[in-house]
Amino acid sequence: MNSQLEILVSELRVITQLRRVAALLSWDQETYMPSKGAQARADQTALVLTLSHARFTGPDFRRSLAALVELDSGEVSSDGLLPNEIRLVEMAWRDWHRATVLPLDFVGALAQLTSEAQQVWEEARQKNDFARLAPYLEKIFDMKRHEADYLGFEDHPYDALLDGYEPGMTSAQLAGLIDTLRPTLVDLSARIGDASQPGRADALYLEYNESTQWEFGMSILRDMGFDFTRGRQDLSAHPFTTDFHPSDVRITTRLNANHIMVGVFSTIHEGGHALYEQALDEKYFGTPLCEAISLGIHESQSRLWEIYVGLGRPFWEHYYPRLQGLFPDQLGTVSLDEFYAAINSVFPSTIRMDADEVTYNLHIMLRFELEQAIMDDNIAVSDLPSLWNEGMQNYLGITPENDTEGVLQDIHWSVGSVGYFPSYLLGNLYGCQFYNAAKAQIDSLEERIAGGDLLVLREWLRENIHQLGRGKSAAELTQDITGQQLSAEPFVHYLEDKYGQLYGV
Amino acid sequence: MNSQLEILVSELRVITQLRRVAALLSWDQETYMPSKGAQARADQTALVLTLSHARFTGPDFRRSLAALVELDSGEVSSDGLLPNEIRLVEMAWRDWHRATVLPLDFVGALAQLTSEAQQVWEEARQKNDFARLAPYLEKIFDMKRHEADYLGFEDHPYDALLDGYEPGMTSAQLAGLIDTLRPTLVDLSARIGDASQPGRADALYLEYNESTQWEFGMSILRDMGFDFTRGRQDLSAHPFTTDFHPSDVRITTRLNANHIMVGVFSTIHEGGHALYEQALDEKYFGTPLCEAISLGIHESQSRLWEIYVGLGRPFWEHYYPRLQGLFPDQLGTVSLDEFYAAINSVFPSTIRMDADEVTYNLHIMLRFELEQAIMDDNIAVSDLPSLWNEGMQNYLGITPENDTEGVLQDIHWSVGSVGYFPSYLLGNLYGCQFYNAAKAQIDSLEERIAGGDLLVLREWLRENIHQLGRGKSAAELTQDITGQQLSAEPFVHYLEDKYGQLYGV
Repeated sequence: MNSQLEILVSELRVITQLRRVAALLSWDQETYMPSKGAQARADQTALVLTLSHARFTGPDFRRSLAALVELDSGEVSSDGLLPNEIRLVEMAWRDWHRATVLPLDFVGALAQLTSEAQQVWEEARQKNDFARLAPYLEKIFDMKRHEADYLGFEDHPYDALLDGYEPGMTSAQLAGLIDTLRPTLVDLSARIGDASQPGRADALYLEYNESTQWEFGMSILRDMGFDFTRGRQDLSAHPFTTDFHPSDVRITTRLNANHIMVGVFSTIHEGGHALYEQALDEKYFGTPLCEAISLGIHESQSRLWEIYVGLGRPFWEHYYPRLQGLFPDQLGTVSLDEFYAAINSVFPSTIRMDADEVTYNLHIMLRFELEQAIMDDNIAVSDLPSLWNEGMQNYLGITPENDTEGVLQDIHWSVGSVGYFPSYLLGNLYGCQFYNAAKAQIDSLEERIAGGDLLVLREWLRENIHQLGRGKSAAELTQDITGQQLSAEPFVHYLEDKYGQLYGV
Repeated sequence: MNSQLEILVSELRVITQLRRVAALLSWDQETYMPSKGAQARADQTALVLTLSHARFTGPDFRRSLAALVELDSGEVSSDGLLPNEIRLVEMAWRDWHRATVLPLDFVGALAQLTSEAQQVWEEARQKNDFARLAPYLEKIFDMKRHEADYLGFEDHPYDALLDGYEPGMTSAQLAGLIDTLRPTLVDLSARIGDASQPGRADALYLEYNESTQWEFGMSILRDMGFDFTRGRQDLSAHPFTTDFHPSDVRITTRLNANHIMVGVFSTIHEGGHALYEQALDEKYFGTPLCEAISLGIHESQSRLWEIYVGLGRPFWEHYYPRLQGLFPDQLGTVSLDEFYAAINSVFPSTIRMDADEVTYNLHIMLRFELEQAIMDDNIAVSDLPSLWNEGMQNYLGITPENDTEGVLQDIHWSVGSVGYFPSYLLGNLYGCQFYNAAKAQIDSLEERIAGGDLLVLREWLRENIHQLGRGKSAAELTQDITGQQLSAEPFVHYLEDKYGQLYGV
């Protein structure tokens, strides 16, 4: 490795290590920290992140970057660099540019504002009091408009924010995908609403022993190839995946004693995220080549396992007899077909987190449209509750009973995450295309899944996606794997086929 | 608070926060970290500690200290400072002086050496191969002699090291204490060796369900006043106490399915440490006023609870019926007197960690004498194994079968902790004097303990010791609480009384 690059990499490692230390502080906070430790922990996390940010935006890092890249344009002087090293430097510059283009006092003010807004959101949601949160959201969206100006954009301020989560994606491209999705989703969920629901879904909501649920989830994780010498699973109120290094990747799940599938699907979902992190190339730890491409690609890995594998019939051909064996009283008389129909029941919910795969993207479309409009100043924060409810009615045919179940349900805007929601939708679409590619390229994939062999899929994902880190862009990756650009068509076909059969619609 | 002092305190807080972050990284490593995460964790911990050290020894901190104290002499310019603020600055200077008097490359070389030596020690101990470790110990003791020279001392290089763990203590003072202890301990343990052992000790080594053991330990912790909203207990291979702030203090224990008392006493011991940390004054967090006085005083708190409370008859008058109820098959036919005799059985062991309260200090005396001699260059590292075995024979009348059970049993020297062992002995002596004072000052203390009231003792310790932090020196504290200086006499009387009765000797 070129000695200038070595210096850059060693700077990047320190910055990354500090971020991972902060991630451990957060992991502990969500899993084991005693309740009154919260204030001290907030101070510690803020300190470590501040040190990391200061180092990333400080003179030493700037100098190490300037030795390899023209700082204004991002053009890499590629002398003596291998192609993946050029990519490493490009991505490092990209991140640095996004971080340094924002004035320090702006970053500090936004952090302060969103930290307060989070607490206000908790309270507003509990008390169904949108007016309490509204002034904070106004300030946040206002600052986000400034952020977009700092970051720069071609067509739409929203693009500047979107690019932070999904590099290269634009609202125009998103709008195109949504135009394909909208009619099918609205129509399909309406048709399903008129059909009869599967008869045995109630069986999922009986009492299920939590430690048996836990063991079942752990056995699936093992089968997926989650490496327990390089990771672990714990319980937390809100499931998440975090990593401190590819050799230490942690997921959490939650269990519901009265709903067997909550824990199972949470484990599979986070497990999908974790396989990505565990398979990143340690050799490049600290650099973009040992990081996930984007939130959307990350989500594609969790959704691929959760939806395309975990909601599929082949998976349950293998696992359902085992689950029945663990819970004979609850599931002994429920056939595999009945169980498969039950876990795939579609019904509109006001809550995004509870949505099935047919209606889920409608929740995202609503959020995308609202946050885009608000960034354009086309609507006011005070109009959000009524516009939200209108959108729910149009897309899902239901209206939330109150703002707690409506516009107040998500924390994202309160923490300043604007442009984040589309990642979920993109994850569903990427995941569908990737899974189709895996089926095409792996001999008898679904038969093998039905036989309990999940490792073949993990291996394919590792080779084609995980180990590359940010070596390719999301668009390049999609093209290389699927031979096509990202499209909503495969997803639409998938839904039409699957739910056409299941509901006879 | 004086504005110069405010600057100093805010610098100290950052330095302390980073140390506490490193402590969380270590806690996680010992409790939940997956095995292969070790290398990345070592890098993260080293990074955070390096940042903390750099800040402590760097120009900003030096400047903030220089505004309040003459840097060479440590003399505080006390204008506008309250007495406890003067003490704060004095202690901050003391720590800074000890840290900065060592050249950075010396500190780095010692860290590198001891990090390697730790791994070599693990291997040497496993393979009973002292020769493998000897060259590392030679280098470590050599560097420790240099360290003593850097730190400065009056009579003996050992004093400079001892002062790092027990400020103000000298080897002369220690030798005086030991001269009092030696004849009694050697004689008492020999007399006990000739007496008959209690008959029902075998009952402690039956099979004991671990989760019941855990619950029993947790109930004692609750009764001691350990605040579970500001701390927690977990399992680890080697029990320890760590803290990230007085609001987040964590202990670990280990359970032995074939020995009921291992977990119980480990929990009580670490619980004693934890009560100290939980009761430090948060207002001064980050400064010496929110830190323990010394290792010996810290150990006095764990040993006070473990030995003087936990091995006492009043404690078990309350807890033994409960323990019998939990384990009726194992303890149903064992009377309280038999149980009390069993947990107080004395027999010489080659292993310090397994030693009872009569023989424990003999282990420490041997180590103190050897490390003092080696610091004086009076003995060679290669002679340690034979001198160790000789000492064991003289003090305890037994000889280890091999070096694994002898000179290789402790990690301390391999991590560079020379002068640390006496803290254990000092903890026993301080603890005895403090407990005597508590008995004298708290009305019917032992009757109250026998009635299950442990909080009265916790309160007394909090008020007289814990909340002061480093506001007093160990000597001042001892004088103020007990009306006397530290002495071995009370401990000798305690042992003679207790074991005279128990063994009729």
